[in-house]
Amino acid sequence: MQPLTSTRNPLVLAARDLQTHTGRLSAGQFLCEGEHLVGEAIRHAPERVRAIFVQQGREDAYAALTSTAPVAALYSVPEHVLQALSQVKTAQGIIAVVDLPLPVALHQLGDRVVLLENVQDPGNVGTVLRTADAAGFTGCVLTPGCADPFSAKTLRATMGSVFRVPAVFAQDAPKAASELVGMGYAVIAAVLDGEDFYARAPLPPKVCLLVGNEGAGLTDEICAHATHRYRLPMRGGAESLNAAVAAAIFMYEVVNRG
Amino acid sequence: MQPLTSTRNPLVLAARDLQTHTGRLSAGQFLCEGEHLVGEAIRHAPERVRAIFVQQGREDAYAALTSTAPVAALYSVPEHVLQALSQVKTAQGIIAVVDLPLPVALHQLGDRVVLLENVQDPGNVGTVLRTADAAGFTGCVLTPGCADPFSAKTLRATMGSVFRVPAVFAQDAPKAASELVGMGYAVIAAVLDGEDFYARAPLPPKVCLLVGNEGAGLTDEICAHATHRYRLPMRGGAESLNAAVAAAIFMYEVVNRG
Repeated sequence: MQPLTSTRNPLVLAARDLQTHTGRLSAGQFLCEGEHLVGEAIRHAPERVRAIFVQQGREDAYAALTSTAPVAALYSVPEHVLQALSQVKTAQGIIAVVDLPLPVALHQLGDRVVLLENVQDPGNVGTVLRTADAAGFTGCVLTPGCADPFSAKTLRATMGSVFRVPAVFAQDAPKAASELVGMGYAVIAAVLDGEDFYARAPLPPKVCLLVGNEGAGLTDEICAHATHRYRLPMRGGAESLNAAVAAAIFMYEVVNRG
Repeated sequence: MQPLTSTRNPLVLAARDLQTHTGRLSAGQFLCEGEHLVGEAIRHAPERVRAIFVQQGREDAYAALTSTAPVAALYSVPEHVLQALSQVKTAQGIIAVVDLPLPVALHQLGDRVVLLENVQDPGNVGTVLRTADAAGFTGCVLTPGCADPFSAKTLRATMGSVFRVPAVFAQDAPKAASELVGMGYAVIAAVLDGEDFYARAPLPPKVCLLVGNEGAGLTDEICAHATHRYRLPMRGGAESLNAAVAAAIFMYEVVNRG
C-alpha cells in the first residue's frame, strides 16, 4: 500500500475534484466513502474501483475489504488527507475512486422503471433508488434537473442501490416517456388530481412511474405522454406526500398488487 | 403591530430560547417559521399562537394571515432580528411562538396509531407524521429517543401535520405497546425477519404500527409486546428501507387494503 502524505499530491487533488458535479463529469469518476459503500462498489462493480484511500493505522482493519478489489491502486494516507477527501464531518477511514457506469439505453432498464423529473433533494433521489431496488424495480430515468446520484449525499441515501439499479440520464424527459409508451410501458403519472390508485384496473407487466419535483410536481410536457394518471388517497389534512414516500407507496403497490 | 428593534429585547431573547429542546420544554412553547407553518398553526391551534414576529416591510403581505390569529401579540422586527430567531439560512419573513399541545392519553389516539421508537432523524420523524396524516392514521406515540417533533427541521418535514396528528410522549415505550394490546390494538412490529406483510390475514380495525431506529430497528423489549411481526418484501439487493419509507408503505397498506 503506497503512502501519500500531502493534500497537494496530484492523486489526492484529482480525487478531490470528484467532490463536485463538474469534476465527476469531466473525470468520469466519483467518490465512495465508508466501508459499506466501498464494499458495495467492489461487490457490484469490481473493475470500476480504481483507487482506494485508507487512513493510516486502519490498513489492517480494511485489508479483507481492499484485497477484494482487483484493479484498485491502494493508498495509505494520514487523517488530514482523508478528511480533505471526505464530504462528511468525520471521515470514515476509507474512500474509493470509482468509474461512473457506462451509459445504458432505455430498453435495458427492464420491466419496472421509475422516472424522476427534476427531483432536487439528494436524499429524495437516493431514497427512491434504494426503494426501487428493494421493491423490485429494475431501472430508473433521471432528468438534468435531478440531484446528481453520484454526489456524496445521494450516494449515502442510496445505501449502495446506485450500483444495482441502472440509470438513464435523459436530456429530454418527455421524449423518454414517449419512447417508453412506444415500447409498451404503462406510463403512470403520480399526480394529486388523478384517479384513486387503489381503484385501478390491473396494470400491464411493463410499467414506468413518473415522479415529479418536490414543489412543482410533474411538468405538463411529461404528463402529456402519461397513459395513466393516479393519485394516492389523502384522508387527513395533509395536502401532499414527500416525493420519495409517494414513489415508495406506488412502487410497492405496483410490484405486490399488480 | 409593536416594533422591536434589538436582538437583546427580552421578548426576542425568550423566543430565541425556543430554538433548543430544553428551551422549548421549559417554556412549553415552540417556534413556527414561514407562511405555511404559521398558517397551519393559526388554522389548527388558533388559541395557542401567542406571538408573531413579522419582518419590517412585510407587515402588509402577512396582514391577512396575522389578522386571523385571535390572541397573538404582533411584532414588527428588522431583518437581523428575524434572522436571529430563524433556523434557516434565509429567514422567511414570519415566525410565530406557539404553545406546545396539551398532553393527550393513549386512548385518545384513535384507531390507527404509529409508534416511533428512537427514530433519530428529524426528517424521518417529520415525514412519518406527514404521511400518517395523509394516510389516515389518527395518532402517534414518540419515545424519548426520537427527534423532537417541535424542532425546526422536524416541523418543516411535517408540513404542518404536527398540528393534526395527536402525539403521546411515552417514557416507557414497551409499556405503551402493552397497554395498546390491552386496549384491543393489533400491535405490528415492522421487522426484517417477520412474515410477508402482503400475505397477511385481514387486520382488526384498531392497529398500532411499531417503527424502529434507523440503524438498530426495534428493541427486543418492545417487540416482546407485538401481536404481529411483518416484513416488507425485498426483491432486489437492498437490505432494508429508509424508516419513513417503510412506515409509509405499511400505513398506506393498512388503511387501503385492511
